[in-house]
This record gives sequence, structure tokens and C-alpha cells, in this order.
Amino acid sequence: MTVTREQVEEAAVRISGRVRRTPVLRVSATVTFKLELLQHVGSFKPRGMFNRLLAAKEDGSLTGVGAVTASGGNAGLAVAYAARELGVPARIFVPESAPAAKVARLRTLEADVVQVGTEYAEAYAAAVVASEESGALFAHAYDQPEVVAGQGTLGLELLEEIDRFDTVLVAVGGGGLIAGIAAAIGDRAKVVGVEPELAPTLTRALEAGQPVDVQVGGVAADSLGARRIGEIAFQVAGAQGIESLLVDDAAIVAAREELWREYRLAVEHGAATGYAALTSGVYKPATDERVVVVICGANTDPSTLT
Amino acid sequence: MTVTREQVEEAAVRISGRVRRTPVLRVSATVTFKLELLQHVGSFKPRGMFNRLLAAKEDGSLTGVGAVTASGGNAGLAVAYAARELGVPARIFVPESAPAAKVARLRTLEADVVQVGTEYAEAYAAAVVASEESGALFAHAYDQPEVVAGQGTLGLELLEEIDRFDTVLVAVGGGGLIAGIAAAIGDRAKVVGVEPELAPTLTRALEAGQPVDVQVGGVAADSLGARRIGEIAFQVAGAQGIESLLVDDAAIVAAREELWREYRLAVEHGAATGYAALTSGVYKPATDERVVVVICGANTDPSTLT
Repeated sequence: MTVTREQVEEAAVRISGRVRRTPVLRVSATVTFKLELLQHVGSFKPRGMFNRLLAAKEDGSLTGVGAVTASGGNAGLAVAYAARELGVPARIFVPESAPAAKVARLRTLEADVVQVGTEYAEAYAAAVVASEESGALFAHAYDQPEVVAGQGTLGLELLEEIDRFDTVLVAVGGGGLIAGIAAAIGDRAKVVGVEPELAPTLTRALEAGQPVDVQVGGVAADSLGARRIGEIAFQVAGAQGIESLLVDDAAIVAAREELWREYRLAVEHGAATGYAALTSGVYKPATDERVVVVICGANTDPSTLT
Repeated sequence: MTVTREQVEEAAVRISGRVRRTPVLRVSATVTFKLELLQHVGSFKPRGMFNRLLAAKEDGSLTGVGAVTASGGNAGLAVAYAARELGVPARIFVPESAPAAKVARLRTLEADVVQVGTEYAEAYAAAVVASEESGALFAHAYDQPEVVAGQGTLGLELLEEIDRFDTVLVAVGGGGLIAGIAAAIGDRAKVVGVEPELAPTLTRALEAGQPVDVQVGGVAADSLGARRIGEIAFQVAGAQGIESLLVDDAAIVAAREELWREYRLAVEHGAATGYAALTSGVYKPATDERVVVVICGANTDPSTLT
């Protein structure tokens, strides 16, 4: 299962007007930030979720029953937001342990939040069953072609926004964003994945030759805490020869602090992970290599920045 | 004393490469944000301060003695930053009551911070005396032609970044930013000033027919707390027919909260003041009127956003 540039281009047409075209900020002669933290509901996820829901509306699989997903994080917010905008119900399954603030925010987006089980896997299973029983559309957080293609629209925007770039640094959790970007522009730029050492889904999959479950933890687990890289992301990574780098939690924390101190960008730890590869020296660009860093989410408690 | 478009164009050439070209974000069919909070040291002020210092370097009035200003806020940060970048000393006069965090931040920019007197007027007087005695260049926070012309470069960027716009909403304190923007593009767009009801320097000056001292207070006083509109701003406002609107503190607080909630922009109260005119309905655009809101600063304690 893979995703092509054509699918990303179709997605861009489909979701046009539904998502924000996020700006870029040139921060040095060679480094540019893609400010995707300014997207609706604070992360890139609405790109993929609008594409999933709108494609399903076209083929009749999204009905008045609406959509379901399992996520207490950015994917859940994106499904809730996209469903509300499209006028269909959203049911979001989260573990009983989900923080009250996240549940409350999903409810302000008019989602039906169902708390079930002690961990994510149980919420996921319940969401799949609910989809099968009710006929609601299941939207996967990262491993469906329409979701990946939607995320890839960010890559197409880069081609229009930046004259020339050689490399894109992207944080990796389940891999939906990096797979979409690689499908969109992998032939034009080097796409490099950056993962927390404590959540190395792509790195371990590339080592094992297939997606494998990993232990996840650390400061960025709230957004990059998928246990296993998506099949689509793994296929695209192999086809495009994507590199995967690891950064430690201290580097992520330092990069996040620098993004606030120097640029007044209040970001979640996952969104500082790509930048951490640069600031820590884990990724060393060549002289004159032009690097884009995707700053992909801002669902963070800003009081932790002081 | 006034400032012309030609002076702004000269400033743009002079400060090129020293300041960030900040991006815009289109947030609806008719509203666009200018994201000037992403500027160096978190506000628009470096535009004017680089222009002041670089122009003085050209004419010989900036020597190795460096520059002085009186400001515990964004102007002080900007002078400290510009001086450091240009390799000259900066001496920043602030009242003894200046918060320790602001003093510390000035010192991280290698400024010599002098705490004197119980209020801003005393720090200002001390800075002027120090300039006269030492030969250091005095950089005024808002009322010198080079400072105003530098701030106006933001207006020139708008012409390149946005296809068409009718109106620019700008928060007003001492008036340096609005005067610069009006000088740059007042013939192309309507420039509207927005002030806190509790810091109405431009409004009262327009009523009185001349700059007058006003009582200042309220949530935005840390950045918009100048006691009197600048002479240059008053002249430009009169020449360009600038309107001035007032918003109350509740509207500023609500606009700031919305900027975080909906756009993940962590801004100071002063920087939410322009947007507050839209969200409160104090400024009602005509149908299809395209409005730019300048989001001009982010030197805020992010813990106050939760």
C-alpha cells in the first residue's frame, strides 16, 4: 500500500479552502520553518482528516452517521473539527485515563467522546467495532491512503512557498506526515525523519525490515507516541530511501525552549523534534544546504514554557 | 516633522538582512494577519532601531560609545539586540521598579542596564543626560524619523505579501508603528489605529488638535503605555487622515485568548489590541473589505494563557 504524488495533488484540490495555507519563516540564510502549528486545531492533522472525510463523502461511505476515530490527541481534534465543519457527527474513543482538558476540548468541538479501557489499544479496538456496527467512517490517525495524501499537501505548499530547498526535516510518530511529504516531493528534496530516542518507530522498522512494535515514552509521547510505524509510511520510506535520525529528550526540550525564546513559537515537544536534529547537531547540513524544518503542532500547555 | 515613503524605502534597503521578513497568515476570506510577533526579540521594534543605529553609523553619530535608550520593554530589547548585532555597546535606562525578568533579558543581550528613579520619566531623563554627556546615540522608542521609517518597512512588506487589501488595523502606543505604516502605504490602504480605552494617546491628541499627556493603565500598558503620542505620529496621522478607535480591556483580553485558542499565537496584550477592534465589533468592515491585522509582539508570560 502506498501513496502517489497524484493522490496528494487530488487531496490538495479536495481540501482547498478547508485548511489554512500555513506560512513559512526564513530564519537564516539556509534554514526555513514551515509554520504548520498555525493550522486549525493546532496541528497538521486536519489536512489528512478532511481528505479522508471528503473522499468518503464522494464515494458514499461517509453518511449522516458520521466518523469515528481513536485518539485523545491531535488526530482526535482533527476528526472532531473536520466532522463539525462538514456537518456530520464525530465519535472519538479515548482511554479512561485521557486528561480532562483534552476530553473537554474535544467536546467543545461537539464530538461525542467515549472513554473506554485503560490504554490506547482498547480505545482503538472499541472505535473499530463501533465503526463496523454503526456504519460510521473509521478515520485512522495515520495509516490510511487518504490520510497520508492529505498530510502530503503540506509538501506541495513548500514548492510554492520556497524558491529552493534541498532537505525537509520532519518529526515521525506513526509516519503519516513524513509519508505524505515524501510522496509529494520526495523526488525534489531529501526527506529526513526525526524521532525521539524513546519512540523510535521508523528507525526500528527500517532496521527490522518491517514495522515492529516499540516501547514508547519520553517528553514527546503525547504526539509521537504511536507504537508502530504505519504500513504506508514504511512502504513510502523504503521506496524513497528516507533516512531516520534519533534525538534524545534533552535535545527536544532544548529545541522547544529555543523556539519560544528566539521565535516566540509555543510548540509541543513533538513539534520541536525535527528542529532538535539541527540544534543538537544530529543532522549536519552541508555548506549551503537549504533545510526546511516542519514545525507541526502547538497543542501544549504554554505555562510549561516559562 | 514627518516621514515620507522615500524614507521608509531607504530604511528597507538599510536594514535588509538585519530583520526577519515576517510572514502573513490568511485566516478568512477577508482577514489576514501580519505575524510580526515572529520578529527578532519578539516585536516589530528592531526594524526602527536598526534603521536608527545604521543611519547614525553612516553619518558618524553612532560611534564606539554606542547607543542609549529608556525602556524596560520592547524598545529596550530592540536597542540592545541591534547594538549587539552591530558590535557597539547599549545602555538601557529603566525605572527601579522594572521587573527582574525584563532586566535579566536585557542583560542576556549584553546591555548595560541602569535602574534609576521610580518612574519611566526619570529613566528617560537620565538616558537623555547620559547621551549628552557620553556622546552615545539616543534612540527614542517611537518619536524619531529613522525609528518611524524603520517601523514602516512592515508596511512595504504587506504590499509584496498580499495581493489586495483595503485596511490595516494597528495597535497604537507612542505611534511609531502606525506612523511608519501610514507613511509607507497610507495612499494604498486605509490605516486605522486601535488603542486601549485606558491608554488613548492618539484619540486624545486628535480631539485636542495636538499631542497631550494622558493617564495610561490597563492590561496593555506594558507595551502601549506611552503617555503621549509622538509628534511624528501626530503629524502623519493628521496628514493621512488616520482614524483612531478605542477598545476596552475585556475586548483585548478576549482577543488575546482567541489568538491562542484558534491560531496558537501567544501574544502580549498590546499585540491583541488591533484584533480586538474586529472581534469586539468596534471596527466593522464592509462586505468584501479586506483587512490586515498587525500582530506586533509576543513578549508575554505564556503561563497567563492557560
